[in-house]
This record gives sequence, structure tokens and C-alpha cells, in this order.
Amino acid sequence: MLKVLARGELKPGALEAMAPLFKELIEKTRKEKGCEEYGFFIDLTDENKGCFVETWASEEDLAAHVKSEHFTTIFPKLRELGFTMGEVTRLRTFV
Amino acid sequence: MLKVLARGELKPGALEAMAPLFKELIEKTRKEKGCEEYGFFIDLTDENKGCFVETWASEEDLAAHVKSEHFTTIFPKLRELGFTMGEVTRLRTFV
Repeated sequence: MLKVLARGELKPGALEAMAPLFKELIEKTRKEKGCEEYGFFIDLTDENKGCFVETWASEEDLAAHVKSEHFTTIFPKLRELGFTMGEVTRLRTFV
Repeated sequence: MLKVLARGELKPGALEAMAPLFKELIEKTRKEKGCEEYGFFIDLTDENKGCFVETWASEEDLAAHVKSEHFTTIFPKLRELGFTMGEVTRLRTFV
């Protein structure tokens, strides 16, 4: 099991325009092999910041995700609308 | 719904000594009202860094958690063993 926290910044005011793309990305990703959790959340103190929270069964499943058609086509569209990926943290279970 | 990402740093070598305390904290917290998810995860690139990933039904449930007996007794013990809390991010669902 592998948990991923992937931060992102959104151009001010672009949140609503990005919503359908996030929705499509999330719905398609949740159907992928090994996807146990996948969501995008908005910072309560700054709505121009957010974070993907993801849980994958294996490294291989995560590797397949970033090569998927929806990932490789939707992310460029999000970037065009003003989305910038930030820090990505990869975590493992402990206890 | 409210998601919390709470980072922490661990004194090098202290991870195993802290394990029973994390285990107790996690088990007791998961039984709390409104706790939908609660875990502590270790950074894959630096085992002296970690992150709590939490989902709470409401702000009230989270407020009750940080006043709970297990929270207020276990955190001081973790700090004694070399645990330092870092950045806390509070998130809401988006789509």
C-alpha cells in the first residue's frame, strides 16, 4: 500500500472552471486497478491551494495511473486553466 | 466533512519505540464519534518524517478529538520520545 499527497496551486478564480476536469479525472481514476482512494481537496484557509489524496495498492498501479489516457489528457488542460502541481509526498503505512 | 494532514518529524532511531504509542492513539481515535479515517504514515524518502491523515465528519468531532484523554496523554509521551508536530493542513471536499 502506498499513499500519495500531491499539492497543487490554482490560479485565483479558476476553481469553478476546473471543476468538470477534476470530476472527470477523479471518476475515471477511481475505476483504475489498484486505486483504493483518489480525491482532490481544497485548503480551508486558502481556496487557491489544494491537495490530491491518493491510496494505491502498489507502485505498479500508481505508475500505470500516470500513464493513463485520462491523466495524460486532463492534466495539460488543468495546467492551461492555471493549475500548478506542487510538492508530492509518498507515504507508507507504519502501525 | 473535513480532512486533516498533520505532518510530524521523528528523532532518528525513535520510530520503533514510538510504535506502541501510535498504535494506541490510532486504535482509540478510530473509535471516536465522527472519525472516518485516522492513520499515521511514514515518508518513503525519509523515515524520520511522517504525516497523520484524518477525515472527520465535522469540526465539532475534530475539536472533541484533541480534547480526548488518549490525545492529551499520548502526545506528550510521543514528544518525550522525540516527536515534533509540523504543518497542519485542513481541507474540504471539492468535487
